[in-house]
Amino acid sequence: MAAPAAPIDFWFDFLSPYGYFASTRIEELAARHGRSVRWRAFYMRGIMQEHLGQTRPFLEVPLKGDYYKRDVPRMARWFNVPFKSGGLANFISANALRGFWLLHDLDPALARRFAREIFEWHHVRATPPNTPEQVAQAAANVGLDPARLDIAAAVQQPAAKARLRRETDAAVAAGVWGTPTFVVDGEMFWGADRLPLLDDWLRRGGW
Amino acid sequence: MAAPAAPIDFWFDFLSPYGYFASTRIEELAARHGRSVRWRAFYMRGIMQEHLGQTRPFLEVPLKGDYYKRDVPRMARWFNVPFKSGGLANFISANALRGFWLLHDLDPALARRFAREIFEWHHVRATPPNTPEQVAQAAANVGLDPARLDIAAAVQQPAAKARLRRETDAAVAAGVWGTPTFVVDGEMFWGADRLPLLDDWLRRGGW
Repeated sequence: MAAPAAPIDFWFDFLSPYGYFASTRIEELAARHGRSVRWRAFYMRGIMQEHLGQTRPFLEVPLKGDYYKRDVPRMARWFNVPFKSGGLANFISANALRGFWLLHDLDPALARRFAREIFEWHHVRATPPNTPEQVAQAAANVGLDPARLDIAAAVQQPAAKARLRRETDAAVAAGVWGTPTFVVDGEMFWGADRLPLLDDWLRRGGW
Repeated sequence: MAAPAAPIDFWFDFLSPYGYFASTRIEELAARHGRSVRWRAFYMRGIMQEHLGQTRPFLEVPLKGDYYKRDVPRMARWFNVPFKSGGLANFISANALRGFWLLHDLDPALARRFAREIFEWHHVRATPPNTPEQVAQAAANVGLDPARLDIAAAVQQPAAKARLRRETDAAVAAGVWGTPTFVVDGEMFWGADRLPLLDDWLRRGGW
């Protein structure tokens, strides 16, 4: 009996609208090729600062920032998904990312629903879920029983911080430097606009 | 009588393999939509240093540089074009870019053949055409009569340098910050991997 095909790793930070766009497509794409998806949250700002030497806020980079501002709503229309941003600079995603991993330890399916909820708060409802209380509300919205986990308190604990740091280190170890990034069978694709290429790669078995 | 559709501006520096890949597809893509292509050379390193604040050689950026090195040959296979790089760090494209504009003043079709030739020297034959003499050889290869223009001498003149600077300023004024970039009807697309989106934009008349 053949081993099942390896999953697609979907590396993301909630911060990027491109990650949100990709999150609406990746499950369907993977299923078409008989693959599952591992959702793997990491802290993008940590990689930018510690590894890429990018300290200037992206939107303030001349020319590039302007392109981004125009490209994002255009890509939302291309993906045909609702979009209203809470503002790149207004969202500190650390609490939500820690919350993702805490929920993942309880139930990966719940963590996935939470991830979709967080993407929606920031990129559809223009409400950056920054605080532990907002994270707890988002978790409750998708079915976390508060008796099971006090997530607002837990995201502020050293253990939750260390966990996100380990996952971010794992991203770096896998070669990830941007969000979203997809890795399958050791092959890496960066960016929502590379989804058609990932699709082609899986269809043809590489090229 | 309707005015003819506006051309697609194809902004490029010879340096990037993605620009080479795109150069093999853009004329056919444009023709399919009844558009012509204006080939517009600019000096990418000038924009990186003066506008983007990027002074570190790209290949030395951790993680990103590794992704690039793996992505480039993969994209060459995806575009199904021959590829053997002369090395990103080995090519100073300024003389070739100046040569492009000198030839463009004589004959845009000749300049276009020259551009293809330069792309091929660096990205297929692994021979970075750095020197004025190499630029002159490349121009001769595509039909420049040396009696018409001593291009090896001309690329070193202040007028040729000023011309490339003006064209690079025009790129910046158009919002260009990377190569290749395509602009049509005021809409900008960066990257060879955005060619399918440019195609879709023209097919649907925007979205």
